[in-house]
Amino acid sequence: MKPCRIGIIGAGRIGKLHAENIYYRLSQFMLAGIADPCVDREWAQSLSIPLITTQHEELIHHPAIDAILIASPSAFHTNQIIAASQANKAVFCEKPLGLTEEAIQACLTVVEQQQTLLQIGFNRRFDPNFASIHRRVQLGEIGHPHLVHITSRDPTWPSMDYIKTSGGIFMDMTIHDFDMARFLIGSDVVEVFASGSVLIHPDFAECNDSDTAVIQLRFKNGALGVIDNSRQAVYGYDQRVEVFGHQGYLLAKNQTQHAVHYFGRHETRYANPLYFFLERYQEAYLAELESFYQAWLHHQPSPVTGNDGLQALRIAMAAKQSLQTGKAICL
Amino acid sequence: MKPCRIGIIGAGRIGKLHAENIYYRLSQFMLAGIADPCVDREWAQSLSIPLITTQHEELIHHPAIDAILIASPSAFHTNQIIAASQANKAVFCEKPLGLTEEAIQACLTVVEQQQTLLQIGFNRRFDPNFASIHRRVQLGEIGHPHLVHITSRDPTWPSMDYIKTSGGIFMDMTIHDFDMARFLIGSDVVEVFASGSVLIHPDFAECNDSDTAVIQLRFKNGALGVIDNSRQAVYGYDQRVEVFGHQGYLLAKNQTQHAVHYFGRHETRYANPLYFFLERYQEAYLAELESFYQAWLHHQPSPVTGNDGLQALRIAMAAKQSLQTGKAICL
Amino acid sequence: MKPCRIGIIGAGRIGKLHAENIYYRLSQFMLAGIADPCVDREWAQSLSIPLITTQHEELIHHPAIDAILIASPSAFHTNQIIAASQANKAVFCEKPLGLTEEAIQACLTVVEQQQTLLQIGFNRRFDPNFASIHRRVQLGEIGHPHLVHITSRDPTWPSMDYIKTSGGIFMDMTIHDFDMARFLIGSDVVEVFASGSVLIHPDFAECNDSDTAVIQLRFKNGALGVIDNSRQAVYGYDQRVEVFGHQGYLLAKNQTQHAVHYFGRHETRYANPLYFFLERYQEAYLAELESFYQAWLHHQPSPVTGNDGLQALRIAMAAKQSLQTGKAICL
Amino acid sequence: MKPCRIGIIGAGRIGKLHAENIYYRLSQFMLAGIADPCVDREWAQSLSIPLITTQHEELIHHPAIDAILIASPSAFHTNQIIAASQANKAVFCEKPLGLTEEAIQACLTVVEQQQTLLQIGFNRRFDPNFASIHRRVQLGEIGHPHLVHITSRDPTWPSMDYIKTSGGIFMDMTIHDFDMARFLIGSDVVEVFASGSVLIHPDFAECNDSDTAVIQLRFKNGALGVIDNSRQAVYGYDQRVEVFGHQGYLLAKNQTQHAVHYFGRHETRYANPLYFFLERYQEAYLAELESFYQAWLHHQPSPVTGNDGLQALRIAMAAKQSLQTGKAICL
Repeated sequence: MKPCRIGIIGAGRIGKLHAENIYYRLSQFMLAGIADPCVDREWAQSLSIPLITTQHEELIHHPAIDAILIASPSAFHTNQIIAASQANKAVFCEKPLGLTEEAIQACLTVVEQQQTLLQIGFNRRFDPNFASIHRRVQLGEIGHPHLVHITSRDPTWPSMDYIKTSGGIFMDMTIHDFDMARFLIGSDVVEVFASGSVLIHPDFAECNDSDTAVIQLRFKNGALGVIDNSRQAVYGYDQRVEVFGHQGYLLAKNQTQHAVHYFGRHETRYANPLYFFLERYQEAYLAELESFYQAWLHHQPSPVTGNDGLQALRIAMAAKQSLQTGKAICL
Repeated sequence: MKPCRIGIIGAGRIGKLHAENIYYRLSQFMLAGIADPCVDREWAQSLSIPLITTQHEELIHHPAIDAILIASPSAFHTNQIIAASQANKAVFCEKPLGLTEEAIQACLTVVEQQQTLLQIGFNRRFDPNFASIHRRVQLGEIGHPHLVHITSRDPTWPSMDYIKTSGGIFMDMTIHDFDMARFLIGSDVVEVFASGSVLIHPDFAECNDSDTAVIQLRFKNGALGVIDNSRQAVYGYDQRVEVFGHQGYLLAKNQTQHAVHYFGRHETRYANPLYFFLERYQEAYLAELESFYQAWLHHQPSPVTGNDGLQALRIAMAAKQSLQTGKAICL
Repeated sequence: MKPCRIGIIGAGRIGKLHAENIYYRLSQFMLAGIADPCVDREWAQSLSIPLITTQHEELIHHPAIDAILIASPSAFHTNQIIAASQANKAVFCEKPLGLTEEAIQACLTVVEQQQTLLQIGFNRRFDPNFASIHRRVQLGEIGHPHLVHITSRDPTWPSMDYIKTSGGIFMDMTIHDFDMARFLIGSDVVEVFASGSVLIHPDFAECNDSDTAVIQLRFKNGALGVIDNSRQAVYGYDQRVEVFGHQGYLLAKNQTQHAVHYFGRHETRYANPLYFFLERYQEAYLAELESFYQAWLHHQPSPVTGNDGLQALRIAMAAKQSLQTGKAICL
Repeated sequence: MKPCRIGIIGAGRIGKLHAENIYYRLSQFMLAGIADPCVDREWAQSLSIPLITTQHEELIHHPAIDAILIASPSAFHTNQIIAASQANKAVFCEKPLGLTEEAIQACLTVVEQQQTLLQIGFNRRFDPNFASIHRRVQLGEIGHPHLVHITSRDPTWPSMDYIKTSGGIFMDMTIHDFDMARFLIGSDVVEVFASGSVLIHPDFAECNDSDTAVIQLRFKNGALGVIDNSRQAVYGYDQRVEVFGHQGYLLAKNQTQHAVHYFGRHETRYANPLYFFLERYQEAYLAELESFYQAWLHHQPSPVTGNDGLQALRIAMAAKQSLQTGKAICL
């Protein structure tokens, strides 16, 4: 097995997660380097990373590195993809691809010219349950899909500092659900209508953001979709999808913390859903990199393309516009 | 126990259902008469109904009748309510209250002047599961409600003759869900956005109707709501509600046809939901009349008022307008 | 539809239950009379029963009565069956058939000579879930049955006065489970081993009885069975069966009081099982009489024969003997 | 963190499993050596094991090894424990401790004299669900425990060569359940009654073994227990436990292969249980070694003692005797 020598740009929460997954669980990769302006060297050494740097260019231009994993702040994504692509590296990039449609388009042009393998970090596509629903819809188990409903609620919200620069709930949180909706229905979104409310904390209003939202989608093939979001589900990470079609209906339930049921005098009790994304999407984070490795090894197309990243961003922007104007927005 | 002598106008499917429930199950009522232009006399005699007539006025003006149950075609509802109200009968009326807001307003004015007990047949409020969620939301178990989601899918659609005169999916089918949404959130709807598609059968398009719909609601208290409808769920009557709030989340699952699970070589199988409304809302149909009886006996306010009927109709009309204009409609 | 004119002997809890079911729900029967030494006449009149008597012989010999339902104390069962059989009535008798094997044998001889339709009140066979498992086992869905496991726990125990004369837990409570085990496996029991403990209340020890028991069965076809019993399940009536075979496994879960799930900060809660037999076996009580009516009308064999009653009693006696001797007992 | 340098005796299926868990997942251990007469050197090198040998004595007497994990054939366990104990190593030993009670007693005497840390590989105690039930029973959530029921069915049986030397179903398979029963009830077993059948394959009869069994237990504290076993559950590894007490009831359901439900025209389908022990007890295998490490590091008592191993074996022997004699056996 030919190992893929990978360098990671960004050693924040998600960069560290990938680095640890690669070191402990994904032996098909070799963790060749990590770059971050304020990298935690002790942590990096514990993973035996040979090249620890503050300059991401070092990784991009390193001859003994095959692939770059971009987990830096969103504002840097497009430029880093372009640089890595021009240096002939394969690229795995966390969402979003960039902040504006123009920047992304320019970036994707380079990627195409260079025939770069570019995979976007829509990890939920690799959740075994959601992936299975996708596959079963594709196989026709429910006939023509008519409706997709995604429930996506976080157990708690990040710091307001983060919220301020997050681009808003649709760009930060719902973007995953927009991608999931396209993935499950297998068709592009042509119309978006979004509602938002501030029901959890007034700070969201100060950030000009919503903490609770419902977004309605219409797909090219006529199917309808609906997503509901909350920044605070006290019972844990609520991540369910359902796809309804003319021959049946597929539903992925939450996975619970355990399988013990208690029957007491007044009621029966069981476990809440897994707490948050680290627990819930543990397998998905591994599977997306395994999939990236396979595509790299066999020169296959990316399982989550630049266009997928672009489409999700366009839906998020349309949702924002819909919220501001009170109108459905056509894409 | 003082019996309530009741006369039923309309001996179609729903009129017969109520008559049989009263005869076999609700001993607090006395089934005093039934009126229908083409009444099935043999059936009526099997229920020992003393007065069988083609003229509903006979019931309305009969001195030994305390209450009128209106199960006639929708177009007659307002006039029959007015007549019964003026004859000092208590009135139980199937939805909708009428076809136009003006007619309903006029009718409700008479009802108010006459101090008539008027209950609308939103039977689902009396489903034990939905009623329990309503009560628990009221008791504050989930804190402030943020989101309501109603899944309401029929196993199959009625004849196209019925569809043609039904007033469209929002007036005929979603009206129950609009009422349920108001009931569960405990606040009025201030904004509606609706999408519809024809995905099941092209005849719906010819009737200028949708067979699949998603409707988004905003409530006065800031909460958001979403309803999804289909005219054909092949797996049975899909009737679920969930209410999400800042302290928790309540969910009413479907009730299944049985409780047997089969574990075979390849998968585990269990029962689909109950087939349709007769099975699913059997208890609710009984409970709504028991509730009507209690209100009548103790001179209490109606559990489902004329205003509830009016509000649901206004939301349905707004949904229709939203679909036609592609805009959110404020109420 | 030819009505079956039925007389009920015994107006205790179970006699009243059947009388009310017949009056309100089973129009194929005519409730012709009721006999009890201390009958509640007001209650009987509310059901419009024409013949109310303290002498059961009046019912047995009444020419306008087709069938006798025996719900008297167990000690009278055999003699009443014999008398009714000799009077050419069809007989529905609550369990047990009698108190000794000899008495039952003598009674069954008369029943056979007279070709009397005799059905034993093993109502649980008519529970829709258990009946479905029986049918599916018969149809071969699990191949050869290997194991049956019955969980049968009461929410609370009857008065100690009742316990004293009940014949012990195996005769009073497990007898239903013995019948169910035979019914589901479709083979006779050839060996019994029983354990019992007094864990709930010391009064059971004073009555020389157990309040907690586990009984192991071996069937003629080689299958094994196990029953666990408790006189006090604080969470409600726990009535589950499972049958395991070489091609699969069938499980009937408890039916819960409602279908609402609450997801709170610490855990998820849902409803306990239905409280006790009146709630849990409501449909089964109706279905057993419907089945009796069909057998009577069409001169078909009894769905629950005298032999079924005898076999269950023999297993119960063997269990008692096993508990006393600490040995497995062969039948 | 001080690493525990561990040597593994036996590189069969379970030895390899532990080796791989240690190498990839348990960084608190250092995999210092492996001994097996026919060790797979290529595999061992892939785990960077420094000492690969055919002589287990090399590991036992190696000065740079702190602990020995025994995964050799059962017949060697007692002698290897004694040798390791005398060499002052901590010992983790797969079940059973030995083949006869005398050998085990002798072995445990040495272990005690040497104050050796000895942990038995009853991995299921570390299954998160079963461990949670144990903890909750200990905390009194169900009051006094009255009944334990363990369902333990394998998806398929091992080779007949294995069966022949396995010591029979009670020693090979049920021994885990006997330990689980003691663990959950928190009391020793005082009486055993066992039934067995050959229902799956006649070869079991030729081996003088059963493939289907039900075992009944009585505990010192009066509680009752029941275990049902099958060598072939076509739907997967069926591993459930329930503990019933005077204040409630705890149930650990199976964990399913996924969380997707499909609602089709005729029924609803979902996933079978996880296939077998490698999937089902993945976490338990890790957790038992983590626990061993903690006991070793902090000089704490073993979480699964030699006495636990001895008791389970004694129950297994009594079960065998019960099956042969048809009598309950007292311990």
